Amino acid sequence: MSDQQPVQMRVSLAQVDTRVGDLAGNSDLVVHRAAEAAAAGAHLVVFPEMTLTGYPPEDLVLRESFARASEQALVDLAARLAAEGLGGLAVVVGYLAHTEGSGPAPVDEPPTDDDRPSDANPRRGAPRNAAALLHGGDVVVRYYKRHLPNYGVFDEARYFVPGTELPVVRLHGVDVALTVCEDLWVEGGPCGVAGQAGVDLVVSPNASPYERAKDDLRLPLVRRRAAEARAAILYCNQVGGQDELVFDGDSMVVAPTGELLARAPQFVEHLLTVDLALDPSAVPERRDGRIGPMTVTRHVLSDEPVDAYEARPATVAEPLGDCEEVWRALVLGLRDFIDKNGMPSVVLGLSGGIDSAVCAALAVDALGADRVHGVGLPSKWSSEHSLADAEDLARRTGLQYSVVPIAPMVDAFETSVELSGVAAENLQARVRGTLLMALSNQHGHLLLTTGNKSEVAVGYSTLYGDSAGGFAPIKDVPKTLVWELARWRNAHAAERGETEPIPRNSIDKPPSAELAPGQVDSDSLPSYEELDAVIADYVDRDLGLAQLLERGHDADVVARVLRLVDSAEFKRRQSAPGTKISLKAFGRDRRLPVTNRWRETVPTVVEGAQA
Amino acid sequence: MSDQQPVQMRVSLAQVDTRVGDLAGNSDLVVHRAAEAAAAGAHLVVFPEMTLTGYPPEDLVLRESFARASEQALVDLAARLAAEGLGGLAVVVGYLAHTEGSGPAPVDEPPTDDDRPSDANPRRGAPRNAAALLHGGDVVVRYYKRHLPNYGVFDEARYFVPGTELPVVRLHGVDVALTVCEDLWVEGGPCGVAGQAGVDLVVSPNASPYERAKDDLRLPLVRRRAAEARAAILYCNQVGGQDELVFDGDSMVVAPTGELLARAPQFVEHLLTVDLALDPSAVPERRDGRIGPMTVTRHVLSDEPVDAYEARPATVAEPLGDCEEVWRALVLGLRDFIDKNGMPSVVLGLSGGIDSAVCAALAVDALGADRVHGVGLPSKWSSEHSLADAEDLARRTGLQYSVVPIAPMVDAFETSVELSGVAAENLQARVRGTLLMALSNQHGHLLLTTGNKSEVAVGYSTLYGDSAGGFAPIKDVPKTLVWELARWRNAHAAERGETEPIPRNSIDKPPSAELAPGQVDSDSLPSYEELDAVIADYVDRDLGLAQLLERGHDADVVARVLRLVDSAEFKRRQSAPGTKISLKAFGRDRRLPVTNRWRETVPTVVEGAQA
Repeated sequence: MSDQQPVQMRVSLAQVDTRVGDLAGNSDLVVHRAAEAAAAGAHLVVFPEMTLTGYPPEDLVLRESFARASEQALVDLAARLAAEGLGGLAVVVGYLAHTEGSGPAPVDEPPTDDDRPSDANPRRGAPRNAAALLHGGDVVVRYYKRHLPNYGVFDEARYFVPGTELPVVRLHGVDVALTVCEDLWVEGGPCGVAGQAGVDLVVSPNASPYERAKDDLRLPLVRRRAAEARAAILYCNQVGGQDELVFDGDSMVVAPTGELLARAPQFVEHLLTVDLALDPSAVPERRDGRIGPMTVTRHVLSDEPVDAYEARPATVAEPLGDCEEVWRALVLGLRDFIDKNGMPSVVLGLSGGIDSAVCAALAVDALGADRVHGVGLPSKWSSEHSLADAEDLARRTGLQYSVVPIAPMVDAFETSVELSGVAAENLQARVRGTLLMALSNQHGHLLLTTGNKSEVAVGYSTLYGDSAGGFAPIKDVPKTLVWELARWRNAHAAERGETEPIPRNSIDKPPSAELAPGQVDSDSLPSYEELDAVIADYVDRDLGLAQLLERGHDADVVARVLRLVDSAEFKRRQSAPGTKISLKAFGRDRRLPVTNRWRETVPTVVEGAQA
Repeated sequence: MSDQQPVQMRVSLAQVDTRVGDLAGNSDLVVHRAAEAAAAGAHLVVFPEMTLTGYPPEDLVLRESFARASEQALVDLAARLAAEGLGGLAVVVGYLAHTEGSGPAPVDEPPTDDDRPSDANPRRGAPRNAAALLHGGDVVVRYYKRHLPNYGVFDEARYFVPGTELPVVRLHGVDVALTVCEDLWVEGGPCGVAGQAGVDLVVSPNASPYERAKDDLRLPLVRRRAAEARAAILYCNQVGGQDELVFDGDSMVVAPTGELLARAPQFVEHLLTVDLALDPSAVPERRDGRIGPMTVTRHVLSDEPVDAYEARPATVAEPLGDCEEVWRALVLGLRDFIDKNGMPSVVLGLSGGIDSAVCAALAVDALGADRVHGVGLPSKWSSEHSLADAEDLARRTGLQYSVVPIAPMVDAFETSVELSGVAAENLQARVRGTLLMALSNQHGHLLLTTGNKSEVAVGYSTLYGDSAGGFAPIKDVPKTLVWELARWRNAHAAERGETEPIPRNSIDKPPSAELAPGQVDSDSLPSYEELDAVIADYVDRDLGLAQLLERGHDADVVARVLRLVDSAEFKRRQSAPGTKISLKAFGRDRRLPVTNRWRETVPTVVEGAQA
């Protein structure tokens, strides 16, 4: 049976960088990439999760006008694709679904507890994280994500009601099942249902945020699900930065055998096109109706396979090394934050130390040297090498450099109020913060704050001082990794015959805040090797005290670090909490992205302009 | 049948102010209040939701060592109550449940999809929001909250797996069903199951945050559930501030007929004791086993009713007026934030304007005048009345007052960098912020920031300037309500023959930031009446543009306000986002309370101290 002719299909995965809230811009992006896929001869193109709204749209989901606009954008997109001659291409896009009325969307099966918005949480219009297949000007089917992640950075139980229906579309004789993201992470989920129903292909639009070495997890995962679905899986992931998240792409196609057929490079937009040769006779039976917790529906667009054509080889991108992967994540996160928020340029203080040097190098890589302004802000406690190293950095990277000594301002404060100890140390950092914010306001630069994860963890910074800024490029990078990245970036430059951006002296000298004479970080903190090791176990792995000691950390260091980390929550919060008295206070119960293009504008009525 | 003797029972509701993370302190609180209830002759005492951990413990729930410590604290508490002679009193307390092993807690019914932590979100130990009944030194039964709120300020789907079992305990011949908080908000939930099973009493420990006029919703809700359960309901709510949330208490007892038998006052700790006369023969049948989605289990402590005694009348607290309710919420939220974080005192800038005057009056009401430090910070643009009004406020309230003119510092900055327009305006606010933070660091005061909700909504403030501070007492109070509260507070003082705390001139003069000559707020903003009306509809009710226009708001005002609110998200965030690269970045995926007493300390080994 399986020696019959394989059925061919050319599919494209459009790994694109969407903008949250930008329905019009994201629709344009889909049309543009769909045209590219059609030009490449693709029969099916898959876009990432929630393509039209961007991901994560957070509490925008709960704004009914936004959800309605997303539904309209989907219908308009289907029509527009057909109008632009792309109606013959099957296009899978993600969007935010909205059902008129306050009840859940009608489904074949009676809703479970899960599906029904409760009295206390009505979720008007039953918003759903959805994917649709568009073809011939129409929305052919809509799939509602079943498994809603609600851990780590995900809050989907807050926003969406889960789906219970699995649509399968026959396209050129190939049965294509639709799923979304988290559905792929659950054994016995929609992929298992698809496997029991009998399909040839599973599409999986994703918005899977980057984490160090996460790409090592994804391929085995997709392989397990391909085996469970007994079908090829088209895994298309978003790329780009969105506030604190960066999505790395890493889209891939895996055969039912587990063979990796194609893989897109990380951290860049990419159209990955692959020729599939499927064997429909390998699918033992094809069913619909209730299977497990879901209802399978079948829809036929075309039974006839495409005419035989000559397949082309597909790309399988090589994984990046650890430091390069992290560096590129940081560059992309920074670039997208600045550009998606429409900022022309950035400014940062340059101390001559490693943190500001690495931030400056990242900013130059992200934005180009013309858009990066560095300011040396020496005080009376600054060592001589501080300014020299900052100048050296400016020369190496070509960034815009200036110097403003802070002594006159510090003296003015100290004449007005009597300050000592930490208050006097912090004053210097706050004068610097005030100066940098003044330059930011005067020239329109966004201020970068240069604190690393180790500092943020233990609160080793000055509130409204060095912690002031609109974006923190290395906020999630432990100090030991900051050094490693600096060495890697210099070596990477050297390999390519380019100037090393980071002064070696900034890498090699002992770290110091230079807020008091002869001060070094090791006066206040354990060694960064010890500190980072405890942070990794206490913060990232959430281990308790007994486990930390079992793992061999020094008891004194553990006691010290836990005390610092626990009490720094106050400082990490920065924006002051305030007692909530209303339905929606700004804080816990109103969660909106900083980077957000959604704006409703009052339509301008142009008088006498009727045609 | 129903003319038989009613069964009596004296119950107490302990409306207490717990501290998040303070297992030992909260256990002490339970023992102390249980002793008080026993002394009052109570047979049963009910504490609020998650009594032992405090609420909401946020990501502490995910720390296994904390969950284990909570389980241990529960067992220890049962033993301690008995050891202190309180074993005969039935005590219902809330806690965080933890099950050994990585699977779900064993239940009679096969787990549903909901109950099973998924591969992607294992939630080690299946944490549950639980309540237990303690008696005779033992944990008699454990109830696991079924309905997990995951909207507004609640994130319980992130933390807990839901329960499926409803335990009913017979105490002195009275069948008592256990539920927790949200279970009460769901029709057909555990109260409906209890109604079908047949019980006499439902206990409902709560942590229900204050919202304006929420008390008007609670009584009808409890009445509906009492009717559904065909049983009296003991609704015990937490009181006190926890970061941005304030809990108002408002505990109550409602008869199956809907009669309000007792109600505790809002915003204070209170032991509400009520004599019940129940009619067990009114319960048509008593069942156990599977009922709807739950399994009912029955446990007998004592069949014999208590000897007849003379019942005492119970208190039914009168509801507060709107302004008094809000004022007391703000006072309690502020006091608990300062005291639970162990801050000795507060400092704030006094401009002579209404916002700082109201914040100062709140702080004096919360902490006493000795703990409140006000600083006048006049600039060259400050009007004469500014300082006079600030001084008047200081005299009226008795707070600690000083003056630091900011001109020398502002001049020092302006000599170093050329600033104009908004940059020059913001500089003044930042010099003030830096001065106040210097005083905060030098003297240990917490800085209060005085922005109101209208300002926060539209971003009418200076980042790291007037928005700097550790707590924002009126962050959720729209400007029009700030004026109303000021008038109410003065009238309240006058009624009681006390000095009006707030200068009338601060209330009556047109609001101004005084950062440029002759500047008033109405130069930059619509009238506060218009602004607050749009904010209420756009922010609190989440209405879209079309609906706002339908509701009669002026189109130009709407356009202006939406633009301002949408773009102020950047400023509201304050703490800079930074690209996440690890499992747990500080930000979206690590959510901890600021006010948190949970500390694991390395045990001190005292050498040679063995007995």
